[in-house]
Amino acid sequence: MFGTMAMVGATGAVGRIMLQLLEERPMLAKTYRFLASARSAGTTIQFKGQDYTVELLEPAAFKGVDLVIASTPDEVAAEYLPHAIAAGCKVIDESGYFRMHDDVALVIPEINPQDALNAKGIIASPNCSTTQMALALKPLHDAARVRRVVVSTYQAVSGAGLAGTDDLYGATRAVLDKTTYEQQAFKSPIAFNAIPQIGGFKEQGYTSEEMKMVYETRKILGDQSIMVCPTCVRIPVANCHSETILVETERPISVEEAKKLFSAFPGIKVVDEEVQGGYPMPCTCTGSDLVFIGRIRKDLTNPNGLTFWCVSDNLRKGAATNAIQIAELLAKHHE
Amino acid sequence: MFGTMAMVGATGAVGRIMLQLLEERPMLAKTYRFLASARSAGTTIQFKGQDYTVELLEPAAFKGVDLVIASTPDEVAAEYLPHAIAAGCKVIDESGYFRMHDDVALVIPEINPQDALNAKGIIASPNCSTTQMALALKPLHDAARVRRVVVSTYQAVSGAGLAGTDDLYGATRAVLDKTTYEQQAFKSPIAFNAIPQIGGFKEQGYTSEEMKMVYETRKILGDQSIMVCPTCVRIPVANCHSETILVETERPISVEEAKKLFSAFPGIKVVDEEVQGGYPMPCTCTGSDLVFIGRIRKDLTNPNGLTFWCVSDNLRKGAATNAIQIAELLAKHHE
Repeated sequence: MFGTMAMVGATGAVGRIMLQLLEERPMLAKTYRFLASARSAGTTIQFKGQDYTVELLEPAAFKGVDLVIASTPDEVAAEYLPHAIAAGCKVIDESGYFRMHDDVALVIPEINPQDALNAKGIIASPNCSTTQMALALKPLHDAARVRRVVVSTYQAVSGAGLAGTDDLYGATRAVLDKTTYEQQAFKSPIAFNAIPQIGGFKEQGYTSEEMKMVYETRKILGDQSIMVCPTCVRIPVANCHSETILVETERPISVEEAKKLFSAFPGIKVVDEEVQGGYPMPCTCTGSDLVFIGRIRKDLTNPNGLTFWCVSDNLRKGAATNAIQIAELLAKHHE
Repeated sequence: MFGTMAMVGATGAVGRIMLQLLEERPMLAKTYRFLASARSAGTTIQFKGQDYTVELLEPAAFKGVDLVIASTPDEVAAEYLPHAIAAGCKVIDESGYFRMHDDVALVIPEINPQDALNAKGIIASPNCSTTQMALALKPLHDAARVRRVVVSTYQAVSGAGLAGTDDLYGATRAVLDKTTYEQQAFKSPIAFNAIPQIGGFKEQGYTSEEMKMVYETRKILGDQSIMVCPTCVRIPVANCHSETILVETERPISVEEAKKLFSAFPGIKVVDEEVQGGYPMPCTCTGSDLVFIGRIRKDLTNPNGLTFWCVSDNLRKGAATNAIQIAELLAKHHE
């Protein structure tokens, strides 16, 4: 157990889940502190039956803190987390800012726990759409080496924060009632629509969200030879990202073997029956900490190919749960 | 122009669009008749400023009819359309029942018009999710031979008929208002959810909707060597199917060449700018007869691969428009 843990960004979409998880799970630290920007500093957070005053996030705030879990926008992480490292804290970061830095560990505890334990600097938690895919790939990679991945995402609005959820419900009601609603998080209509852009445009016409799936997957699995071709799409689902994933492996994997590999791997649950509802869906997976896999089939176009459907709660395993699991791993090895 | 044209199933989701298209476009026949099951027979349809009494669909109803366009469930097509052929009619069928029969032509007029003109029996219009993909593949196939396709669909509820649309709006309002709604068309919740099953389970864990994309694509493009690996997913979008399509061709196609090939092909419109909204979306494509293509990129995993996003109005080019275009083609060559 740590002496003092500081949570940065407890009032966001992920922060709220993180608080809930900390309430439910064994204590990580003897003392908890909550830090936020000037906008939220001074407000009160209820946690484990106690009132906590949110303190101002500033460079000096990390003094005496052993563990920091931060869930903030990239630019906030970039500005403040180096101060936490300088103050000697263990730092777990939910943001995308540091993930691909050479001296930063990018960790999914079921996959590369040692990277977290060996980390000298920031330990980053991967992007939500990457986490569930990387976890699904890991047992296949261990058994038969993943060579190539084609992935299409069906991403929920909660990935865009609380404003994303407000937009979905507000804009949808406006369509039904034939009124108007001004969206905050999404620049294209989200009600009853599909938006094939998440993040800005980066390399070769791919978006930042897509390139995260390329680079982060390689780093987490520790194999720069894995090739990923992603398309990321926002759809009008409240919570839980879904993905169609096609994998080519060095040797063929049968559906039966895949089911066994997935089922034996921690954090994965197979739901795969050829009946109505015999597969994971956002409405059945929300609130769970697991990655769900179904519709496992042989690729009809390549004997070494396997395709499946993967759903996970993007606020939980895709964000809060993974960060807390990293913290629990560190706590277990902390004296 | 034909002497008499009979429309079967004018009151369904596709039938309504078909009537609208017939109103807007040049006359196909001197006389129009409307046929339906006992439930709708006797009702009145307004068409081109005239009232038409819907006649009972029965084997004898096709006497004196030159052209039949049918938009009905599979079992209705199976029962009645052979009588239309026996009566000497040209028959265009929207249903899935006859599409893969050896003596039936499966036609997209921009791709294989000759198959319609040579047809001795029924001329079938392909499944909505197949039509937009086949049209997108055709110019690539002509230029560089398509070897392999990986497709994930984002399908609108209108593909499940009027009840599908009722379900989306009814179930969504119920969620927002915290009331209940009993769905008619979908067995899993459609509000704010994604359902990875369209049709029943068929071969090797693939659904009927998915296998249509495999078999119909080969038949339309006249090449049994084309391999397709599909995943079909229903999402809470009112109208227009979207698809992520990854294509491997015999020789590499650059993004620039693909744009040129797509742009030059009839029925396709390229919308592809690396800016917010610079791609087709259901909300921008509904009501159009075209197939829209955007987000054209090189496959990051294979030099012979190309990937793109494809959106089309499933009730129009995916159904009604394609059938009317076949009828117009036949009318042009009639006498």
